[in-house]
Amino acid sequence: RCFHFCKLPGRVMGIRLLRFTSVVIIVLLLVAGALTALLPTIKDDKLPNSRREPKTQSQSALDSFTLIMQTYNRTDLLLKLLNHYQAIPHLHKVIVVWNNIGEKTPEEMWNSLGPHPVPVVFKVQTVNRMRNRLQNFPDLETKAVLMMDDDTLVSAHDLTFAFSVWQQFPEHIVGFVPRKHISTPSGVYSYGSFELQNPGFGNGDQYSMVLIGAAFFHSGYLEDFQRQPEAVYALIDETQNCDDIAINFLVAKHTGKPSGVFVKPVDIRNLEKDTNSGYSGMWHRAEHLLQRSYCVNKLVNIYDGMPLKYSNIMISQFGFPNYANHKNKM
Amino acid sequence: RCFHFCKLPGRVMGIRLLRFTSVVIIVLLLVAGALTALLPTIKDDKLPNSRREPKTQSQSALDSFTLIMQTYNRTDLLLKLLNHYQAIPHLHKVIVVWNNIGEKTPEEMWNSLGPHPVPVVFKVQTVNRMRNRLQNFPDLETKAVLMMDDDTLVSAHDLTFAFSVWQQFPEHIVGFVPRKHISTPSGVYSYGSFELQNPGFGNGDQYSMVLIGAAFFHSGYLEDFQRQPEAVYALIDETQNCDDIAINFLVAKHTGKPSGVFVKPVDIRNLEKDTNSGYSGMWHRAEHLLQRSYCVNKLVNIYDGMPLKYSNIMISQFGFPNYANHKNKM
Repeated sequence: RCFHFCKLPGRVMGIRLLRFTSVVIIVLLLVAGALTALLPTIKDDKLPNSRREPKTQSQSALDSFTLIMQTYNRTDLLLKLLNHYQAIPHLHKVIVVWNNIGEKTPEEMWNSLGPHPVPVVFKVQTVNRMRNRLQNFPDLETKAVLMMDDDTLVSAHDLTFAFSVWQQFPEHIVGFVPRKHISTPSGVYSYGSFELQNPGFGNGDQYSMVLIGAAFFHSGYLEDFQRQPEAVYALIDETQNCDDIAINFLVAKHTGKPSGVFVKPVDIRNLEKDTNSGYSGMWHRAEHLLQRSYCVNKLVNIYDGMPLKYSNIMISQFGFPNYANHKNKM
Repeated sequence: RCFHFCKLPGRVMGIRLLRFTSVVIIVLLLVAGALTALLPTIKDDKLPNSRREPKTQSQSALDSFTLIMQTYNRTDLLLKLLNHYQAIPHLHKVIVVWNNIGEKTPEEMWNSLGPHPVPVVFKVQTVNRMRNRLQNFPDLETKAVLMMDDDTLVSAHDLTFAFSVWQQFPEHIVGFVPRKHISTPSGVYSYGSFELQNPGFGNGDQYSMVLIGAAFFHSGYLEDFQRQPEAVYALIDETQNCDDIAINFLVAKHTGKPSGVFVKPVDIRNLEKDTNSGYSGMWHRAEHLLQRSYCVNKLVNIYDGMPLKYSNIMISQFGFPNYANHKNKM
């Protein structure tokens, strides 16, 4: 075949034309090569924290995250928050866990007000349960999950930074709300009282949990969570609380290290008071904190030991918002 | 053998006595077991950052660090600093690199004012060289090195915390003084001008080096440093500068990550003005910063590429000195 084809140009075009064409092509290739060599050297001081240009929805599973937001009786806040979160860099998709049983989702309204930067999926639930948000949603395509309470607003700067931190600590819960447990000589644990107590090790405070109502964590933990002892689900259902403590136990057991990494937020806001629904969050219940202490002890029983570990690492963004935040007085 | 032995008690003591003894032993074991079960559960929420009780000088190589302090013409500051640093928790030994050529060390005075918490070794040098402190001292027994300039005072709290951070990031330079390089379109690098410039990625600032004049790093890097191209030593000797930049290049090449982790110091002081020697540090020379830019570019040549990477992670100690340092305004 080549024999036939090779002869054809020789007969049709003439050997001279063939040579000329070849020379032109070679010259063009050399010129292209020279131009490429003259281009500025690709900088290989690659920044792990760079903000990439917005890509299509097919962003790499490692470069983007899925926001999971459970909502109950605060649709006005939800919609406000969706308008904010839909534009966060590196966001891949939003999953709204719709705990308003029997009520229509705002999907129609959402679609009528499109287009939107990312897809939002409304997962209609059949029972109003706290742990609905901890399902292993098939819609999840990314390695990272950002879980937010439906009354919490965190700035894009904080989220972008915290996501970059998560990428450096992917097996940890990287978030904005640290909490701790306290060990007591009796062996009974208490859910620590903010900064009013500390575990008593050296200077300063310690935390042993990072709450998942404002945090990044690996989607694999949602998968793991489906394989926990029944008693864990029973506990969360009984209290309608403590799902976040349970996840911290799970992560601590899995890593053998402190479950969370605390990133100090620059701008985090609770919008609870802004809702018109009149509904205030579960944490206002009188027994909320006592319940959490109860949960800590129950989980220690269920898991036959206390896996939570303390950390005192607090991460902030160097030179943001103010370059002076790292200025030393030397 | 058992046959013979088993028969012996039967003949000597009588079988009844043997049985009685066995029962007593079993009962005692059961009681001991019961008591153990009743003891408070050993808390396994092991704190990685706990301050251990002072041990003897044979502290584990991983649990303690060696302070290496080079000194030139500021013996008054040196002695002041030694009195402070000798008592830092987890310190194993001090190595003083004596760059005062031909001058007697203060070893006699030091010994006459003993006892001291840790051994201090004075390494007399033959030439006054900046890179003398980067020798692979045989006196080094610990995995961690704390390197301090002889005019820098860092609080014990800061050092204890930073050491605990180093233990979590042992392949990095964990220290208190961040710096950066700037890439320019021409391909020529500049040693960044504090907070007056930033590399232009996203928000805030970035750093790509942590200076070794106040930092923890793995003693293995001193070993590595002995195996660098001759041109590196020539550069440091020529400038009497840039040994710290060279170490950052080395670490970045080794890890493929940002070389340093910046820990924001609470209390770091420069005692330069307090010296009676009239000697002021090298960094006051007019050409100091320009030299450092020069070094960055030379090192890129020597190593055939720019290995330094940026980071914007700033670590502080949770709840210290003030628990309010993590209080959020939610």
